[in-house]
Order: sequence, then structure tokens, then C-alpha cells
Amino acid sequence: MKRKLVAEAFGTFWLVLGGCGSAVLAAGFPEVGIGLLGVSLAFGLTVLTMAYAVGGISGGHFNPAVSLGLALAGRFEMRNLAGYWVAQVVGAVLAAAVLAVIVSGKADFAGLGGFASNGYGAASPGGFGLVAALVTEVVMTAFFLIVILGATAKTAPAGFAPIAIGLCLTLIHLVSIPVTNTSVNPARSTGMALFAEGPALGQLWLFWIAPLAGAALGALLWKALLADD
Amino acid sequence: MKRKLVAEAFGTFWLVLGGCGSAVLAAGFPEVGIGLLGVSLAFGLTVLTMAYAVGGISGGHFNPAVSLGLALAGRFEMRNLAGYWVAQVVGAVLAAAVLAVIVSGKADFAGLGGFASNGYGAASPGGFGLVAALVTEVVMTAFFLIVILGATAKTAPAGFAPIAIGLCLTLIHLVSIPVTNTSVNPARSTGMALFAEGPALGQLWLFWIAPLAGAALGALLWKALLADD
Amino acid sequence: MKRKLVAEAFGTFWLVLGGCGSAVLAAGFPEVGIGLLGVSLAFGLTVLTMAYAVGGISGGHFNPAVSLGLALAGRFEMRNLAGYWVAQVVGAVLAAAVLAVIVSGKADFAGLGGFASNGYGAASPGGFGLVAALVTEVVMTAFFLIVILGATAKTAPAGFAPIAIGLCLTLIHLVSIPVTNTSVNPARSTGMALFAEGPALGQLWLFWIAPLAGAALGALLWKALLADD
Amino acid sequence: MKRKLVAEAFGTFWLVLGGCGSAVLAAGFPEVGIGLLGVSLAFGLTVLTMAYAVGGISGGHFNPAVSLGLALAGRFEMRNLAGYWVAQVVGAVLAAAVLAVIVSGKADFAGLGGFASNGYGAASPGGFGLVAALVTEVVMTAFFLIVILGATAKTAPAGFAPIAIGLCLTLIHLVSIPVTNTSVNPARSTGMALFAEGPALGQLWLFWIAPLAGAALGALLWKALLADD
Repeated sequence: MKRKLVAEAFGTFWLVLGGCGSAVLAAGFPEVGIGLLGVSLAFGLTVLTMAYAVGGISGGHFNPAVSLGLALAGRFEMRNLAGYWVAQVVGAVLAAAVLAVIVSGKADFAGLGGFASNGYGAASPGGFGLVAALVTEVVMTAFFLIVILGATAKTAPAGFAPIAIGLCLTLIHLVSIPVTNTSVNPARSTGMALFAEGPALGQLWLFWIAPLAGAALGALLWKALLADD
Repeated sequence: MKRKLVAEAFGTFWLVLGGCGSAVLAAGFPEVGIGLLGVSLAFGLTVLTMAYAVGGISGGHFNPAVSLGLALAGRFEMRNLAGYWVAQVVGAVLAAAVLAVIVSGKADFAGLGGFASNGYGAASPGGFGLVAALVTEVVMTAFFLIVILGATAKTAPAGFAPIAIGLCLTLIHLVSIPVTNTSVNPARSTGMALFAEGPALGQLWLFWIAPLAGAALGALLWKALLADD
Repeated sequence: MKRKLVAEAFGTFWLVLGGCGSAVLAAGFPEVGIGLLGVSLAFGLTVLTMAYAVGGISGGHFNPAVSLGLALAGRFEMRNLAGYWVAQVVGAVLAAAVLAVIVSGKADFAGLGGFASNGYGAASPGGFGLVAALVTEVVMTAFFLIVILGATAKTAPAGFAPIAIGLCLTLIHLVSIPVTNTSVNPARSTGMALFAEGPALGQLWLFWIAPLAGAALGALLWKALLADD
Repeated sequence: MKRKLVAEAFGTFWLVLGGCGSAVLAAGFPEVGIGLLGVSLAFGLTVLTMAYAVGGISGGHFNPAVSLGLALAGRFEMRNLAGYWVAQVVGAVLAAAVLAVIVSGKADFAGLGGFASNGYGAASPGGFGLVAALVTEVVMTAFFLIVILGATAKTAPAGFAPIAIGLCLTLIHLVSIPVTNTSVNPARSTGMALFAEGPALGQLWLFWIAPLAGAALGALLWKALLADD
């Protein structure tokens, strides 16, 4: 179990450092910045790379909502859920801390600002309200789980799941960064909210509730309508 | 059969929500928008992800033109065509509805506008006329079918078809968004046209006729010139 | 042999229509254009998709320089070279013709212009001279062949070659579009030069000589230094 | 052994020519430049392509830090380390020389400038100081090694390692180009520093020490916490 928890902590660390790091450091770089497309790709590649690296150890969740959905779908033991959640949040917080150290080394550093945190209303990148944020996070996480459950089913081609799942996270970001800055992952939201200025910590509840509800919905839809057992 | 139809509805829902959602929400985001490149990637990744997730259930068409082409090539039973078409259109319409809910939650919302619908003439993103639109949609759909038929042939390497087919849809968008906003998929066109302002519904006929004709052409070219049986 | 030649013609048609089509139609689209990055991706995806679709039929060359290099490395019969070259050039010319039809359907059409043709000196996108163009085309084609020969060697993992080879073409374009608009493929250069305005046809000799010389160099380096037989 | 050293030299040549070449030639091309996203993709694709081409010969390190980390993790014989380092640096220097020839063929050539070299402080693209540069290079290289060790472990799915490792290098660049222009590879830093104007040669020590230390850290973390033997 220790190896599994280390794998989840390392993987979630990488997800937050790579995904949120690209957003904070490179998205808006003058003239040649990577934009939301580069950030979307970065998030997906954190999962793709770590799923190949340590997916065989822990299953490669890196996300409390994914762990819950897999447990509800009968692919992960519910009694291991708490340990996974703690490892994921610890990894995310450590990544946010390392990122804060790097960012503060910039010559013209003037505070962490929003720090790639998630938000709705005035804190939404595109000014989307609470309902739009809820719908987006629930639907995106539900389909994330459907892709995960399908791509890791016994009948799916072996070895390709990290590509499907990682690029699904890229796709989700391509759609939803303007709405909520894209969470679908409560650990990622928590790590950045602890360091961010502004309303992120006060809005954090939504980025636990909506991804967890979405993951549960995805797992139930899968079991009720698509699973073959 | 129920599982197959659910899989087709879910897959087409994801195609429209992800592909058209990225176009409506993120393509023109100020400064850091994902542009036509990001939209092209999003469309391809909807198919790549869902083909890995539920391709084993329904074959992963998510597109009435693809279903027709596969039927004409002898890879899909013609008597199942109507059911697939209904499931695909239902999924596409539901996705457009969910997207409309999300978009209307924007603080400065002022109507759905073109809503990523397909069009020619004045409704073409780059001002391309009817003939250019027809040629583009027919040729692109024909080669889409050739790639699908080739990548899923018995002699093709197993497991890679979702990558080839998904990234083929990305490629098609990289070329043809300026011409017609890219359909090659009548269900996608129908879902968005029902909600779009402007001429989309009146031009919808072309985005059924041209992709279906292109798919038939691709299937016939494959059978006549490339199939080994 | 007929199926092989059809496969080569179709594949090269797709390479030119997709790669050059994305350049002509979408690269410079206002505000949201795909840029050189999108064009580079499109070229690579034409090869990736068609190699999965018809690579099992013809080997998936789609390029006279690749056919020559494979022949010199002993992987392709030299007596089939002329047929492949004809099929590839025919496919490329047909694609350029279809593209010309589409482009001429634009409301504000005012001639085909450079039409994504290759060039050096004043015809180089970045103003690079003859020597830089020669060095670039020779070196890029040489390494293209090394990647092709390595990724299709018996000891390489099966099924992945289209990914490696397609994305190698993307990489080559990411580097060298500013220098020559990137050829590494005499058929692609010929098809577009026949329709382009300006010096393309007069400079076409370089885009036969340099890619062919580069392919020969790559094949010889592979055989002399890397092959294990 | 000669074949292995040639493979490492060729692979590192390609990494520097492709990655740094895209940065120097195409990143800032007017209007349609590939930006940091295109450069990140190019670096990753050099490794992906060459790992499929010659990974079976030499293991596909193309990087002195990777060779050290693999040796410390028991996956590579320490007595071969010096030879690999020499081959990698030779390949990188040759690539920088070829790139200098190409760049100097530009009509308005006015010196090589920074030449995509790595740096901190005033030489950092985003003005990041020494500590931020050190932390970034150490952490990025450590996780690069963890991904490499995991994706090439016996329990990982066969054939996918070049995708995971190549795209990991893309991810690392998406995050860290603004900080140090991204090294994680002392050979890449050395090749470009020899030709660059400015402080690159005087700062080169950091781009040996930090990647090597990071690789050692990654190897030790893997062995202590994640390896199953």
C-alpha cells in the first residue's frame, strides 16, 4: 500500500506542477505564450506520462473524483479511498508550494495572484456563473469517468488507456478552462486554492462537490447502461 | 442493441459537446484562445477518447455518414442504420442543449449567435461558396471513410484505430473549418443548427447530402480499388 | 501492383490536400488561424492516418524520396521505383487541382499566389538563401529516412511506425517551414508548383535533387552505421 | 558498442537540431510562428521519433543526465557512461554547427544572438533568478527520470515508452521554457552555448549540475519508493 500511496502523491504532484505550472508560467508569456491550448496539452500529458510510469502500481488515479468513481463502479476498493485522497491532496499541495517558490523567483514578482485556481462568477476566466460552472464540472467529470471506465475495461485494447485518459483530460480543458479554469479534480483545486489570492478558498466547496458528483454520475451511467456484466 | 445505441448517443453527445463546445467557449478567448488548431484537436480527441471507451460496444461511429459508409462497405448491417442515426442525432441535440445552458450562464451573454453551426456562402467562416463547400465536404468525408476502413481492416495493427481515426478528424478540421466550419457529420450539424441563429437550419440539407455522398464515395473507392477481398 | 499504386496515389493525394490545404486555407485565418504549428501537425497527420489505412498495402511511402531511400537500403525493390514515383506525382497533382477548385470558391478570391509552394531566396518564407535551403532539405530528409528505417526495422515495436513517421514529418515542418516552406517530398513540391504563381516551377529542381540526395544519404548512413545486419 | 555510440550521437544531434532549430527558426516567425508550444512539441518529437528509430540499439538516452540516472538506477552499466556522454556532446555540438550554417543563410542575418541557449537571471526568458532556475531544472529532471524508469519497467506496456518519454519532454518544456529556456539535458545546453552570444557559456555549469543532480534524485526516489524489487 505504501508504494501505491507514493505513486498517487507523485502523480498528483506532477499533475499540478505540470498543468498549473504551465498555466502560471507559460500561458500568457509575451508574443510566444502557449495559451489555453498549451495548458490543456500540459494537463493531459501529466496524466499520460504518469499513468505509463506508475499506473501499474496504483492504478494512476491522481484525482479524488476518479478514485470515488472507480470505487462506485467496483473497480477500486472503497476502504482504500481515504488513503488515496490524502496522498492526492498532499501531492497537490506540495506541487503548489514548489510552484510558488519558482514563481517568486521572477525578477518582477508581485504576488501569486489567482495562481491558476478554479472559480465561478467573477472568478471564472470568462465570467460564467454558478449554474454554468456546476453543469460544466459535473458533465465533464462524468464523461471523464466514462472514458476511464471504458478505456480500462477488459475488452479495451491493452496499453492504450493512458493515451485515451490523458488526452481526455486535454479535451476537457480545451472546452472548459473559460468556464471554471477547469477542475474535475478536487486535489488540484485544493492545492492551488491554498496559495491563491482572491476568492479561490471560499469557492473551493464547489470544486469538491461538482467533480465528486460528476464522477458518481459517470460511474452509475456506465454501470447502468454500458457495462456488459 | 440497447447498449450499442446508448454508446452511439453518448459518443455523439461527447463529440458535439467537446468539439463544438471548444469552438463556442474557447476558440476566440481573448489573448490565449485555442483558435482553430485547438478546436481541431478537440474534435479529434472526442472520437479518440470515445472510440477507446465504447468502440468495443457499438463500433464507435458517432456519425450518420460513417454508419452509412461502413454499411455500404459491408462492415455494418444496413438494417441497424436507422437506429444508429436516431441515437446519433439524439446525442447531438442533447449536447447542443447542454452547451446552450452553459453558454447562457456567461455574464455578458447576448444570444447564441452562429453557435458553431456549419454553413456556406455568407455563413462560411472564410466566405466560401456552395461549390467549394460541396467539394470540401464530399472529399473530406470520402477520405475519412477510407482511413476508417483501412485502419480497422483485419490486416491493420490492432488497437491503433482510434488514434488514426480521431486524428484524421483533427486533420480534416485543420483544413476545412474556414470553408464550412467542417461538418463531415450530419448529426453534429443538426444538433447545432437547431439552436443557432442565422441561416444554419436552412443550409442543413447540404450537411446531410454532402457527408453522406462523400461517405458512399469513400466506401465505393475502398471496395473497388483498395480492399483485398 | 495496381492496389499498391492506388494506395500510393491516394496517400500522396491526402498528404498534399491535407498538408498544403491547411497551409493555404487555415494557416493565416484572421485571429484564430492555425499558424505554422497547425500546418506542421496537418502534414504529419496525413502520413499517420494514411500509413495506418493503406501502409499494409503499399508500405505507405507517399514520397519519391522515401521510395528511393527504402530502395537503396534494400527494403523496397528498385524495379518498382518508377511506378511508385508516377503514382505519387499523379496523386499530388490531383490534390493540388482539387485544392485550387476549393480556393477559387472564396468570395474575395484573387489568384492562387504562392499556393504553399516551396522556394529559396526571395521565395523562402523567411528569406533563406540557396545554401541554407539545400542543407536544410538534405539533412531533414536524411533523418526522415533514418527514422523510417529504424521505426520499421524488425526489432522495432510493431504497430507504432505510423506514429513515429507521421510525427517525424510534423517535427520536420516545425523546424523548416521558415527556410523552404518544407519539401522533403518532390511529389508535394511538384503538385503545388504546377499551380503556383511566382518562381516555384523554376526552383522545382532543388526540391527534387535535395530530398533525393538526403534520402540517399540517410539510407547509406543507416546501412553503414546503424543497421545490425 | 560503436553502433550504440553512433545511435546516441545521431539521436542527440536530432534533439538539438529539431528542438533548438524550431526555437531559433520558427518560434517567433511573424504572425504564424509556432511559439513556445511548437518548440515544446518539437523537443518531445525528437525523442519520440529517435527512440522508435534507434532506441533498440542504444536505449535512446540522448542526454547525459538520463544516462547517469539510468546507471544509478541499475538499468545501464556505469562503465559505459563516459562513452555515452562523449557521443551525446559530439552530436549536440554538430547539430548546433549545422543550425548555425542554416541560420546564417538568412537574408537579414545579424549574428546568432542567444541561439536558444539556456540561462538564468538576465538570461532567463522570463527573468527568473538562480534559485528558481536550480529548483526548476532539478525537479523537472527528477520527474523526467521517474517517467523514464516507470515507462521502461518490465511491468509497463511494451512499445509505448517512446510516446511517454517524448511527450514528457514536451510537457517539461511547456512548463519551464520561461524559467531557463529548459535544459534538463547538459549536452543540449553545451552545444548551443558554444555558439551563442551572451552569458550562456559562463552559466553552463548550472545546466550540467542541476540536470545531473535532478537525474540522481529521480533515480534514488524511484529505487527507494517506487521500484518493486
